[in-house]
Amino acid sequence: MSTVLRFHSFGLDHLAFDKQSLPAVGPLDVHVRFYAAALNYRDLMVVTGQYNPKMELPRIPGSDAAGEVLAVGDAVTLFKPGDRVASLFFQSWHDGEIRNTTGKSALGGPIDGVFATERVLPEGGLLHIPDGLTFEEAATLPCAALTAWNALVEKGKLCAGQTVLLLGTGGVSMFALQFAKAHGARVILTSSSDEKLARGKELGADLTINYRSKPEWDKEVFELTAKEGVDHVVEVGGAGTLPLSLRAVKTGGHVYLIGVLTGKGAGVDPTPVLAKSIYLDGVYVGSRAMFERMNAAIAANKIHPVIDRVFPFAEARAAFEHLQSGSHFGKIVLSLQQ
Amino acid sequence: MSTVLRFHSFGLDHLAFDKQSLPAVGPLDVHVRFYAAALNYRDLMVVTGQYNPKMELPRIPGSDAAGEVLAVGDAVTLFKPGDRVASLFFQSWHDGEIRNTTGKSALGGPIDGVFATERVLPEGGLLHIPDGLTFEEAATLPCAALTAWNALVEKGKLCAGQTVLLLGTGGVSMFALQFAKAHGARVILTSSSDEKLARGKELGADLTINYRSKPEWDKEVFELTAKEGVDHVVEVGGAGTLPLSLRAVKTGGHVYLIGVLTGKGAGVDPTPVLAKSIYLDGVYVGSRAMFERMNAAIAANKIHPVIDRVFPFAEARAAFEHLQSGSHFGKIVLSLQQ
Amino acid sequence: MSTVLRFHSFGLDHLAFDKQSLPAVGPLDVHVRFYAAALNYRDLMVVTGQYNPKMELPRIPGSDAAGEVLAVGDAVTLFKPGDRVASLFFQSWHDGEIRNTTGKSALGGPIDGVFATERVLPEGGLLHIPDGLTFEEAATLPCAALTAWNALVEKGKLCAGQTVLLLGTGGVSMFALQFAKAHGARVILTSSSDEKLARGKELGADLTINYRSKPEWDKEVFELTAKEGVDHVVEVGGAGTLPLSLRAVKTGGHVYLIGVLTGKGAGVDPTPVLAKSIYLDGVYVGSRAMFERMNAAIAANKIHPVIDRVFPFAEARAAFEHLQSGSHFGKIVLSLQQ
Amino acid sequence: MSTVLRFHSFGLDHLAFDKQSLPAVGPLDVHVRFYAAALNYRDLMVVTGQYNPKMELPRIPGSDAAGEVLAVGDAVTLFKPGDRVASLFFQSWHDGEIRNTTGKSALGGPIDGVFATERVLPEGGLLHIPDGLTFEEAATLPCAALTAWNALVEKGKLCAGQTVLLLGTGGVSMFALQFAKAHGARVILTSSSDEKLARGKELGADLTINYRSKPEWDKEVFELTAKEGVDHVVEVGGAGTLPLSLRAVKTGGHVYLIGVLTGKGAGVDPTPVLAKSIYLDGVYVGSRAMFERMNAAIAANKIHPVIDRVFPFAEARAAFEHLQSGSHFGKIVLSLQQ
Repeated sequence: MSTVLRFHSFGLDHLAFDKQSLPAVGPLDVHVRFYAAALNYRDLMVVTGQYNPKMELPRIPGSDAAGEVLAVGDAVTLFKPGDRVASLFFQSWHDGEIRNTTGKSALGGPIDGVFATERVLPEGGLLHIPDGLTFEEAATLPCAALTAWNALVEKGKLCAGQTVLLLGTGGVSMFALQFAKAHGARVILTSSSDEKLARGKELGADLTINYRSKPEWDKEVFELTAKEGVDHVVEVGGAGTLPLSLRAVKTGGHVYLIGVLTGKGAGVDPTPVLAKSIYLDGVYVGSRAMFERMNAAIAANKIHPVIDRVFPFAEARAAFEHLQSGSHFGKIVLSLQQ
Repeated sequence: MSTVLRFHSFGLDHLAFDKQSLPAVGPLDVHVRFYAAALNYRDLMVVTGQYNPKMELPRIPGSDAAGEVLAVGDAVTLFKPGDRVASLFFQSWHDGEIRNTTGKSALGGPIDGVFATERVLPEGGLLHIPDGLTFEEAATLPCAALTAWNALVEKGKLCAGQTVLLLGTGGVSMFALQFAKAHGARVILTSSSDEKLARGKELGADLTINYRSKPEWDKEVFELTAKEGVDHVVEVGGAGTLPLSLRAVKTGGHVYLIGVLTGKGAGVDPTPVLAKSIYLDGVYVGSRAMFERMNAAIAANKIHPVIDRVFPFAEARAAFEHLQSGSHFGKIVLSLQQ
Repeated sequence: MSTVLRFHSFGLDHLAFDKQSLPAVGPLDVHVRFYAAALNYRDLMVVTGQYNPKMELPRIPGSDAAGEVLAVGDAVTLFKPGDRVASLFFQSWHDGEIRNTTGKSALGGPIDGVFATERVLPEGGLLHIPDGLTFEEAATLPCAALTAWNALVEKGKLCAGQTVLLLGTGGVSMFALQFAKAHGARVILTSSSDEKLARGKELGADLTINYRSKPEWDKEVFELTAKEGVDHVVEVGGAGTLPLSLRAVKTGGHVYLIGVLTGKGAGVDPTPVLAKSIYLDGVYVGSRAMFERMNAAIAANKIHPVIDRVFPFAEARAAFEHLQSGSHFGKIVLSLQQ
Repeated sequence: MSTVLRFHSFGLDHLAFDKQSLPAVGPLDVHVRFYAAALNYRDLMVVTGQYNPKMELPRIPGSDAAGEVLAVGDAVTLFKPGDRVASLFFQSWHDGEIRNTTGKSALGGPIDGVFATERVLPEGGLLHIPDGLTFEEAATLPCAALTAWNALVEKGKLCAGQTVLLLGTGGVSMFALQFAKAHGARVILTSSSDEKLARGKELGADLTINYRSKPEWDKEVFELTAKEGVDHVVEVGGAGTLPLSLRAVKTGGHVYLIGVLTGKGAGVDPTPVLAKSIYLDGVYVGSRAMFERMNAAIAANKIHPVIDRVFPFAEARAAFEHLQSGSHFGKIVLSLQQ
């Protein structure tokens, strides 16, 4: 019997806990006991109906969780009981390029997610987690970490000595910071809070810009890069920040389009993309093979995810509200221990 | 003494012919007699002041010309008198990635161009032309052809069996059509004219869409691709067509942003770029090394540029007006023979 | 009940037909009736014990077959009865890069193959075949065609205007010829037979060299390429031809190491690889995703595999002997119709 | 007047100092005063005639030097007097891929080198050096460092979490160690000396193997990588070590062929390259653009080249003999101060 968080209509008010019996474990299935889960901004959009107002309800939200294998089907070869695992955002994207059908297998969107103490998932939808991480830490990897890794490493082929611009101190940006530093790159970090910028510096940011005191932060970026612009921008803001990001990147540089948090409804003038031969790449999480490579990097570099705060499962709603407030630094986690 | 087309203030009315004596041929310079030149939409924007209203005047427009080497400097190793050559759009981009400074060396923009019977250019700013082409044909390559090649081949690594969407029948699209077919790809072509679409089919287009009768042409593209979408879009329209192009491309597909002909001032919602993991690549002509590879492809596949009409140099203004009318199919050429 | 070709000890003398009942169709399995199969040199090495003298016997050889789906398991989503399918050489390589474990899933080597009228295979181990191909034609794709495609297109990013050197007129070389021409490349073909070279020219080879009359064929290649060398060599010969291939390729060119037919036991001096910055890539067939892309290219370009001869299944031994003789041009096929 | 080291016939015995007047500084030339130079194994092969027994003599050896600009030609834009610069191994390889003609511009081979207190070189043949490095340190970069960078970063797209195998503790291997660690990779280092391995560990090597006590070091590598094999091998040994490197690398892994120090005249069985789909890439130093990217990485990560010993210019012969002894750890430098 699994305890699940579920909503029958859109809105944080409608989040409710429920008991659910589990389906039989098929030949290629794995029965997992989750001990921790992590929130992403997408989860908030899903629950409030902004992500897909036509989503079939009820729905269990959540793409990110980590736990332990309880039982495996007869044909399972990748896992055995007791293995420590995390969920894969896309249950069907194992390797190679993303496909038209990939999105249909996203946890906590078109199919039920992992804000649940137990689930039965196909073995292809789980992955071993690095030894040195706690369940709380590992639970933060499936969406935010893999997105940052896919952008900078898989698409961007980031190398030492390059400069990376990160916007804000949310989960994706903090993973991008850690991965960029692990690859010997220089990081410029923006935030509206000097305190957060100071914490960013402790995590390795080389240069920081308070975008409240410097609203034309693209000009600051140019000054900080000898008027060259940066090699990579991890663009989590959307239409509200993209015009400045396109100015801050160098000719021939990369802008990874990840989030649409700001400037809803606004349009962006695409002219700079061609005038500067910019590579503007949409990034939508990543594959199982990418996750494996990322885990190797996390293990080799002893990277520990930046966790803002851990909420008990019972306080999931407070966790969502904390995410909504935007005051966090790094990831917000739910403990599913009982 | 060179006959040059020059403008002292913006506007087609101010285009005027002039005689200009040539500078001494420096050690690395080449003295060229041009016999043909080709117009690009950029030239029209340059002359009318839309490209850069702060451009220093007077200016000789034109990035594309082909002719014969008359004399070479002492240190020149690439050319000898009698060689058939074309101009390079970027005089300084020889190989590798584009740089912040590349744009400063663009002919017919920040520096004087090649709508001139003779010019002295650095050897690095010229290239041998394929044997089988006339000067009129070769003159069309430096901007439009190289842009199409850079997009589909250099950035896109186009391969046989992929599907390419081309918007309209201008110079870039017609080169993209020829290069796509040379690589065994399928081409879907749009136009507002059934007659132009018929001519496109003769050149190899597999499928055509009249965007006037089918204003939601992205839906047609989906039907024509078994609801998959296309692998590549050569997007010459800008803000006016980009939203539809983003819908017409498959998840993980490529959109090459080349032109800004339509939808001036409008903004584009960037959300589909991330939701579909699209590679949106700005393309700004290309390097000398790309030009060499393109020439090999043109020679091996006996490709002949599609020329709409050749105007005598003396009727340059009429050529510009013909370009402005948008009624052309392929390239508009100036004959610089006298 | 399936009719299978099997060997209990190594040697063509031990090939024998047998009846085999089929296993139950599991949830993700597909029951296929094969109508045609194709031979590869590897099959000869497998049967004669040269491939793996420690292989567990008895074994059904064969990696390549095409036929029709008879029945599918409950969880199968890719196929339905009546679908026309081919086998995948590697049953487990779906997408992305090859892995250490990939080789264990190769048909007709570590696991039983497809020289059989019926087999039950996992759905991931089959692929739809292009509409325009017969079963005989489609049966030739899984090993030889995919190897040529992986080399030139997936690894080599072959583009129009490049030059490809092909050694001999076996199955891989003839597919490489067709794929190279489909991509607008120039092809230089070698053979010991002027008659085969003439047939190669009919298939599109631009230039040919009889390596018997020109044993220093690398020098011919240089003459035929303006002393530049070729961009790509599809090297099917091994130690016996590799030294000449390394001389025939240009600085910075690609040599795809595919076969080891010649020069057994000999060693190759690796110095030219570094002196000329050569990319020497081992190619071992390819993935399901590559096969899909190849099929799209075959369909779009109406490519028909070059079949040397079709033998009835009952004359399989004669087919092996024909392969052994080396006199074939293109693929040798077994008809599994009864 | 420049003091140069020169040989009129092959052999260390024939190395002699000479005074040479400098040519006039042409418009694109730069007059440099070198303060330090570094030895590579190639220099020893050049001087002893093993590199090219037909080399035209006399010849000034040496590809690597660093110093200060004394004067520049009228058309020089990249440098001004007082700038700190290093030589480029290939005077003509600025960006993009290597070409057939690149080798002709290699310093200290086909053209005179930089074991000289002063030289006049084209501006394209020099590069600014990172601020934090001494001339002795910067002098080590042009050949060994750039070779290691080109292999792992430019060709290999090395990423964090991957494993790199390095053979021995010469200059290339020590730079590869520093670059691999700067990118968050794991390093396995071999040597015949436990003392050198201990120094390698101090520089960041994660795991070490004494190949004298473990002559089958490929098996050790497999044990140290959970029987996976490594992602990258920087192969500086040649025919003597390559067979083991091909065994030590994982399926689909990269082997960079750089040196030919061992196993002269022996041949290598190419079969594993195809059986394991190995990427065997020849690496021949690199371009100016790669050097720029490498310098950015050196500066951002405060990397200091590992210098074994600095010899006064007057003791150049002793420096060559020290190199020949093979007892060094990192680079051997000549001080050209006077």
